[in-house]
Amino acid sequence: MSALSQANCEVCRVGAPKVTDLEAQELMQQIPDWSLIEVDGIQQLERHYKFKNFVKAMTFANQLAEVAEAEGHHPGMLVEWGKVTVTWWSHSIKGLHKNDFVMAAKTDALLNQ
Amino acid sequence: MSALSQANCEVCRVGAPKVTDLEAQELMQQIPDWSLIEVDGIQQLERHYKFKNFVKAMTFANQLAEVAEAEGHHPGMLVEWGKVTVTWWSHSIKGLHKNDFVMAAKTDALLNQ
Repeated sequence: MSALSQANCEVCRVGAPKVTDLEAQELMQQIPDWSLIEVDGIQQLERHYKFKNFVKAMTFANQLAEVAEAEGHHPGMLVEWGKVTVTWWSHSIKGLHKNDFVMAAKTDALLNQ
Repeated sequence: MSALSQANCEVCRVGAPKVTDLEAQELMQQIPDWSLIEVDGIQQLERHYKFKNFVKAMTFANQLAEVAEAEGHHPGMLVEWGKVTVTWWSHSIKGLHKNDFVMAAKTDALLNQ
């Protein structure tokens, strides 16, 4: 389990700094299965998780929902049969905050529970 | 509650007929809040549902997951803070079967429970 997954989200308000390209590059090394994508000009982290069926995909989504509520930071979760696509970004700054990398690491950690 | 929401899914295998444009047009009248979209050449039904927070959005997603399991037909559900985007289509025929309209109506019916 990475150190990142043990961190907690900081308060992130409008005007908080986005991660720099260098910071993003360093943080990505701790979440190697995630991709950096851009949707409508907004940088996001994305990962696809595969499961054996729909119920197992929903179970994962519910576990992630609990973590998200606890941290006060919420993902996009596309649940399909046998698959969950998770995206993280910070709406308030329209981009990536360190929180998003923390949450990506916490998402990965759910698989090892 | 529409008659469509009371129907059940038929078995839909590879080679089953897609709905015709005329059938789709008639069925859409029973689910007026849904849009007919095309993603990668595949026709789909899509609707956005709004909720007061993330927990309420997840509750709806879980209710829909139960209905989907019961009918053996599964949606795409994008859960975000205060919002669930549901898409229905039939993977086996790469398009829309009557089942998808039935499931869209059943999804709407969850709101009135």
